[in-house]
Amino acid sequence: MKKVAVILGGCGVHDGSEIQESVLVLLALDRANAQAVCAAPDMPQHDVVNHLTGQPSPREQRNVLVESARIARDPIIPLGRLQIASVDGVIVPGGFGAAKNLSTFGLKGEAFDVHPEVARVLREARQAGKPLGFVCIAPAIAARLFGPEQVEFTIGQDAATARLLERYGGRHVNCPVHNVVIDGRLKIVTTPAYMLAERITEAEAGIQRLVQAVLEMA
Amino acid sequence: MKKVAVILGGCGVHDGSEIQESVLVLLALDRANAQAVCAAPDMPQHDVVNHLTGQPSPREQRNVLVESARIARDPIIPLGRLQIASVDGVIVPGGFGAAKNLSTFGLKGEAFDVHPEVARVLREARQAGKPLGFVCIAPAIAARLFGPEQVEFTIGQDAATARLLERYGGRHVNCPVHNVVIDGRLKIVTTPAYMLAERITEAEAGIQRLVQAVLEMA
Repeated sequence: MKKVAVILGGCGVHDGSEIQESVLVLLALDRANAQAVCAAPDMPQHDVVNHLTGQPSPREQRNVLVESARIARDPIIPLGRLQIASVDGVIVPGGFGAAKNLSTFGLKGEAFDVHPEVARVLREARQAGKPLGFVCIAPAIAARLFGPEQVEFTIGQDAATARLLERYGGRHVNCPVHNVVIDGRLKIVTTPAYMLAERITEAEAGIQRLVQAVLEMA
Repeated sequence: MKKVAVILGGCGVHDGSEIQESVLVLLALDRANAQAVCAAPDMPQHDVVNHLTGQPSPREQRNVLVESARIARDPIIPLGRLQIASVDGVIVPGGFGAAKNLSTFGLKGEAFDVHPEVARVLREARQAGKPLGFVCIAPAIAARLFGPEQVEFTIGQDAATARLLERYGGRHVNCPVHNVVIDGRLKIVTTPAYMLAERITEAEAGIQRLVQAVLEMA
């Protein structure tokens, strides 16, 4: 049974991992008889957002690992303890958690950083020739880390964001919601999901393809 | 396009709606081209549970409607404003939110109450002949409200819990995880989901059938 790490960044689109995308990744992995190994950094969330109003909730503090456990349901491990040798691939769902907790793209724009544990895991997987999948806005992390290797990626059709991310050396490819962009050389798969999706079945179609492509290269 | 209210009770299996079950309900509705109308009571959660440790987090306070909005992603309405005339059916996912926020079954056992707004919506729907679906432990609510009408329901295979719930007058039917119990007379559908499921595709199978059965009777 293939094992795939799923890196979560909280629980909820505005301050964590997008819940529906994350569950769809877990569903597609289980359909393919692959085992998800959920992991998240043990760190404070950048912020907490009231998802009813969309406004920040500045007096609340939450932990990325603790909130991610809500999505995982089953055991989740601190990302710092994830050994790449123990998995066959890595997938990162979207949501602002990917842009505020797992990286700072949503805060700093062009000159942004990737959380060191996230960068370590993804670079080790890449060096070991293991496939990586990035959903929604999470491909920004792939563009940041693997731009110097000219990664091909998609975040959908947003030209301004794509240009920003291409400055690291990669190439953005426009992609419809139900499809994926596969960089076969680097074994990196990306799909727009809720960057474009207007309903959950649209996100599901692209995520299902992404998971299949990751598993085929694993 | 048929509209189905999805009543959420927070966000996370230990203190709210089970996230995976809730997303699978939304997915199955969208697959069938039905529109989900998410609603939740605007009330404090009974408690907040750290989902990493499973322990209570007594200093935290969260609101059921605000946390449920994380799952809904799209607009969610306060349950008090849900008009049964505007929907064709109602579905309640599981998780401890159904037993601690939407009802008190998980707190009080046999002599438990259903939140008045939840009871109002479900009774109005039943009186209007609209189908109802209950997932996982949420069928306890159906047993409490519709026991006097001899509802047939399942919470899986847990004999002790089933006996407790049968005291209201309904009849429990053992049911495997991939299946549903349909009370065609009352138009009430129940499925065990994570009362029995050991993997997400098992929960999906039963939930997919539940949603189809609800929509066929709508």
